[in-house]
Amino acid sequence: MKNNKLVEITNLISQKQRFLITSHVNPDGDNLGSVIALKLVLEQLGKETVVVIDDEIPSCFSFLHSIDEIIRYEDGLDIDFDMCFTLDCSDLDRIAKVKNIIKSKAIINIDHHGDNPYFGEYNLVKNTAATAEIIYQLIDALEEAKLNKDIAAALATGLITDTGSFRYSNTTSKTHKIMAELLNYDVDTAEISKKVFDTHSYQSLVLRGKVLQNLQIDDSKKIAWVKVSQDLLSEVGATMEDTEGIVNYPRSLAGVEIAILFKETEEEIIRVSLRSNSYFPVDKLAHKFGGGGHPRAAGCSIDANLNEAIEEVVNAAKKELKQVR
Amino acid sequence: MKNNKLVEITNLISQKQRFLITSHVNPDGDNLGSVIALKLVLEQLGKETVVVIDDEIPSCFSFLHSIDEIIRYEDGLDIDFDMCFTLDCSDLDRIAKVKNIIKSKAIINIDHHGDNPYFGEYNLVKNTAATAEIIYQLIDALEEAKLNKDIAAALATGLITDTGSFRYSNTTSKTHKIMAELLNYDVDTAEISKKVFDTHSYQSLVLRGKVLQNLQIDDSKKIAWVKVSQDLLSEVGATMEDTEGIVNYPRSLAGVEIAILFKETEEEIIRVSLRSNSYFPVDKLAHKFGGGGHPRAAGCSIDANLNEAIEEVVNAAKKELKQVR
Repeated sequence: MKNNKLVEITNLISQKQRFLITSHVNPDGDNLGSVIALKLVLEQLGKETVVVIDDEIPSCFSFLHSIDEIIRYEDGLDIDFDMCFTLDCSDLDRIAKVKNIIKSKAIINIDHHGDNPYFGEYNLVKNTAATAEIIYQLIDALEEAKLNKDIAAALATGLITDTGSFRYSNTTSKTHKIMAELLNYDVDTAEISKKVFDTHSYQSLVLRGKVLQNLQIDDSKKIAWVKVSQDLLSEVGATMEDTEGIVNYPRSLAGVEIAILFKETEEEIIRVSLRSNSYFPVDKLAHKFGGGGHPRAAGCSIDANLNEAIEEVVNAAKKELKQVR
Repeated sequence: MKNNKLVEITNLISQKQRFLITSHVNPDGDNLGSVIALKLVLEQLGKETVVVIDDEIPSCFSFLHSIDEIIRYEDGLDIDFDMCFTLDCSDLDRIAKVKNIIKSKAIINIDHHGDNPYFGEYNLVKNTAATAEIIYQLIDALEEAKLNKDIAAALATGLITDTGSFRYSNTTSKTHKIMAELLNYDVDTAEISKKVFDTHSYQSLVLRGKVLQNLQIDDSKKIAWVKVSQDLLSEVGATMEDTEGIVNYPRSLAGVEIAILFKETEEEIIRVSLRSNSYFPVDKLAHKFGGGGHPRAAGCSIDANLNEAIEEVVNAAKKELKQVR
């Protein structure tokens, strides 16, 4: 298992005809943008493509070209193909049941996660802000492929999503250079940004309001947290999906280092989202509770009721924070 | 009154020694970033600079190099200089009382607002996303000037602020190209973005929560609004400054075209912020009430109580919206 060069992947593309493209469950702008861009480019080269994902596609991405050609996995689905691309998957388990379709066919694993274990027969793993950045490089290396408005919009969606609109520290000079090139193809960044980040349901906004009424902060004013119970969701008529982005509220509180969102996904099962602003490694805190992630964004699940989980995690955070400072 | 070429401005800089730099009241990331970048570059060239602004500098910009060298205007302030730069001012009135210092000295007017009337003896007015973009071009044209980390961070702050982190439609391929260049100087975009957009007081977050409890929407579901009364501010312990960005909540509601924030600035004086998402020209609506602005962002003031103002503006918006569609 090793990392391949771009030219090895472009050679594979020339040699084969029929490609399955898949990606992870809980689809987002980067994996969907990457999938669509690769699909459109392969078709440009006269290849046959099928895209299968084992999850629903969020409606906010309906603006992506050919998005309705993505097939949702179901048992018994049988597809004939030569090779399979997995995009934006740090681990093969992330494609869930699509594994049943791949069987023993060769996998080309294209991903930007640092902990990717090179699970493919071929691997193109690079430390970029988004998988879309690697797809851009691949398109650039494919002699007969050409960017157009639809491909550029798909890649831009990936870059915008995974950099939080060029705000996160993963954003590099190269990311902006690629975006500058994509904007030459008449991409409507304002429209994409609005669809990806800035469109909420009425229930989602009311939920945010209720959650903010219960914003908590510890004595040191360095740890802030909010919670979402099943009762609150019912009261407002919201779903767990509507909690997307809510952890950014405690994170935005002036002076706070650790921000936590506690979500009661089921009775006695609490999903915990952890964020830090500058120096505290939340992945280490998550590990204590059997979770994982990155130093600035991590998560874990706790079998307890909401208040017990809050007490347990906040106390652990306080203790760890004292040792870090 | 005419627009000058870059080389005419660089010639003026070589010929003169002492420069006053000023900019508009209600300072933001673009005018402060531009002012600091220009100041640092002129000093690099061995020039003397004084920066005067007739307003307080918001504390969130304290990370900018030399920001504490900006002098706040006061009566009787007497400064000796050869020429004055006004940056990011669509109109000379925007510098308020700094006019008393300039007297009859020549003004170099550098700005990116489309309606700038070329009020300077020299004018460098360009249709860019931010004034910082023009300062970047100026630095590029000054042979002996060199970008460094502090100058790059100041210019990046301008770009990030005025493009809403590269989300607004004013963002061009050129904006991203400049940002790509600035990131070569070790600029911490994540830190700047957090300071500019993503840092709130506890009161500001609680205020957001309360405001969202009263999110209103009309029958067509195309007009949404929120309100902030003086009573609510007192209850929460927040100030009018904490309402910054709140109009984005109704604007983010799926399907909404017109978003409105009503702020009771004083008894019977309601400040109205208007936003639209795609097609409705809110500046025309604002004109009806003696206000103004741009098609997607405008404002006006109404002498009435909060409920009267809401009724008046929402009814006018409904009527106009019917005619537009």
